[in-house]
Amino acid sequence: MFTITPVSHEFDQAIQAQIDGKTKPLGALGELEPLALQIAQVLGETSPAISHPKLLVFAGDHGIAASGVSIAPSEVTTQMVQNFLNGGAAINVFCAQSGFDMEVIDCGIATPIEGDERLINHRLGAGTKAFHRESAMTLGAVKQGFAMAFERVTLHHNNGTNLIAFGDMGIGNTSSAAAIMAAILKLDVADCVGRGTGIDSATLARKQMFIEQALYLHCEELSDPYRVLAALGGYEIVQMTGAMLAAAEHQMLILVDGFIATAAALVATTIAPAARDYMIFAHQSDERGHQLMLTHLQAKPLLKLSMRLGEGSGAALALPLVRAAAAFYNEMASLQELSIEI
Amino acid sequence: MFTITPVSHEFDQAIQAQIDGKTKPLGALGELEPLALQIAQVLGETSPAISHPKLLVFAGDHGIAASGVSIAPSEVTTQMVQNFLNGGAAINVFCAQSGFDMEVIDCGIATPIEGDERLINHRLGAGTKAFHRESAMTLGAVKQGFAMAFERVTLHHNNGTNLIAFGDMGIGNTSSAAAIMAAILKLDVADCVGRGTGIDSATLARKQMFIEQALYLHCEELSDPYRVLAALGGYEIVQMTGAMLAAAEHQMLILVDGFIATAAALVATTIAPAARDYMIFAHQSDERGHQLMLTHLQAKPLLKLSMRLGEGSGAALALPLVRAAAAFYNEMASLQELSIEI
Repeated sequence: MFTITPVSHEFDQAIQAQIDGKTKPLGALGELEPLALQIAQVLGETSPAISHPKLLVFAGDHGIAASGVSIAPSEVTTQMVQNFLNGGAAINVFCAQSGFDMEVIDCGIATPIEGDERLINHRLGAGTKAFHRESAMTLGAVKQGFAMAFERVTLHHNNGTNLIAFGDMGIGNTSSAAAIMAAILKLDVADCVGRGTGIDSATLARKQMFIEQALYLHCEELSDPYRVLAALGGYEIVQMTGAMLAAAEHQMLILVDGFIATAAALVATTIAPAARDYMIFAHQSDERGHQLMLTHLQAKPLLKLSMRLGEGSGAALALPLVRAAAAFYNEMASLQELSIEI
Repeated sequence: MFTITPVSHEFDQAIQAQIDGKTKPLGALGELEPLALQIAQVLGETSPAISHPKLLVFAGDHGIAASGVSIAPSEVTTQMVQNFLNGGAAINVFCAQSGFDMEVIDCGIATPIEGDERLINHRLGAGTKAFHRESAMTLGAVKQGFAMAFERVTLHHNNGTNLIAFGDMGIGNTSSAAAIMAAILKLDVADCVGRGTGIDSATLARKQMFIEQALYLHCEELSDPYRVLAALGGYEIVQMTGAMLAAAEHQMLILVDGFIATAAALVATTIAPAARDYMIFAHQSDERGHQLMLTHLQAKPLLKLSMRLGEGSGAALALPLVRAAAAFYNEMASLQELSIEI
């Protein structure tokens, strides 16, 4: 479905020489140095510049939420989508601060919002089915979600965006993400499930039990990433996965947010391992399974601020660091031109 | 010499209620939440805004450098100061990215730069004495350095700056900072000394030996923080310390950079513990003793990017996070106004 080319390593030596030749001790910019290398690999080694960064917030509801796995009911998904449209959420504030242009996409919230043309309509239904009882969605819905995400990302690519991030909103979506993670990494559910935005121990135990049930129910589907998404996914997670694959196909930088976005990245790289070359990881959340996914993806996020919000908040906060890495690569003087020896 | 008032806790409850009432789960913004509380304590609880952020790079040379404790000779201090003035260093690039207005202050580099009026003249000498053989400077120089730093910070305060950061440049200054740290925290030198910008093991052993010698030589001076600075300090570390105390007196936010700046913060809080209330810690470097100082100061830096550069680079990179904390506090909608319950 997607044609994803790994990044070229043709210029790696030249890029590294440029980084090493800057007026600083070797390696002194720490994690910004491999980040600059990656940016130059993806955007070109001459003068890579972040252009029209976009953050897309994908929202969807989850059948599992009705069984009480979250601190809030599904209605809050719609309320928060309205909050995004009104500009009052954390992600609005952080996008404005860091220069991300943000848009909100309804992938299938339970209660649709009518008459607001700023809300992009990618609805695949009115919330998924409860995945511990039946498949969350059909395989057709997964493919339709991928196609819509591809179209949207392509639009932004054609308008000059070369860095894109994806946020999530969906009550219950850490359950879906944890189930997907357990299925793909073949880990114990207990290692994948966490407290989401702050559930108590009884709710945590219930969440874990439903995911165990779901994995057993769908065990024959779990060797194929598309079927994993159909069985356990959320509409927003499906579209985040498709959007990441689309962005990788277009050779854009993908700034990956927290737990939910990383689960999507896990599926995307299972489908197309080369997509990993385009991913920058923004924030390591406190969600229990996040570190395990990041280890599998050989990812070290730029930030670790104990946030547990979603929405793309970690990606929005990390953008200035990505810009800083590009800027030092492009703008710093070289030791050679100043005749400094360190 | 300085009159430093602790922050008021009168509005803590109201501030925390405003943070907790935002459209997000309780605590979901992680470390940005206590940061917002601190910003509101210092800048006022109604609508705290960062104004005219300034980053001052203090440069000075160190007698100890002639004994081979660094990867580079003292000449590099002057070359890097020239690089700062030319706009080619990492700190120039990062300040431009994050909106810091930057200035460079010669506190006593070995080879002065003539005829560039952008360079602020706070010279206390042409480099300190080698502190393992004699006092680095006189007590008079410490007091003169404090007075000049106070004047400069006051100027910026009067021009509307309410957040200030201090960077360092000085070949050999991690030796001075490690010696100060060992003296004040009464720790083994081995726990305080690190590889600076990248020295080898033989140089590390030499650096450690000189610091041991210095602590023995000056052992009668080390119970008083001013005398610690005179015995072991650098001209730039002295002025950073004075500048932090001045900023605290003016009730400005102080964004503390890495190892050198934290050593200055350690001295400043030893002189006036209330100065700690105004300090935000930017970056945890890989320098060995940094974590120990941070623990003593009960500080958890915003970033951990394995940088080891100085110049104020960590502070410049952390400013967007400070702005984000102020912005969510000021701009996010409340659960109450949207009738959302989470």
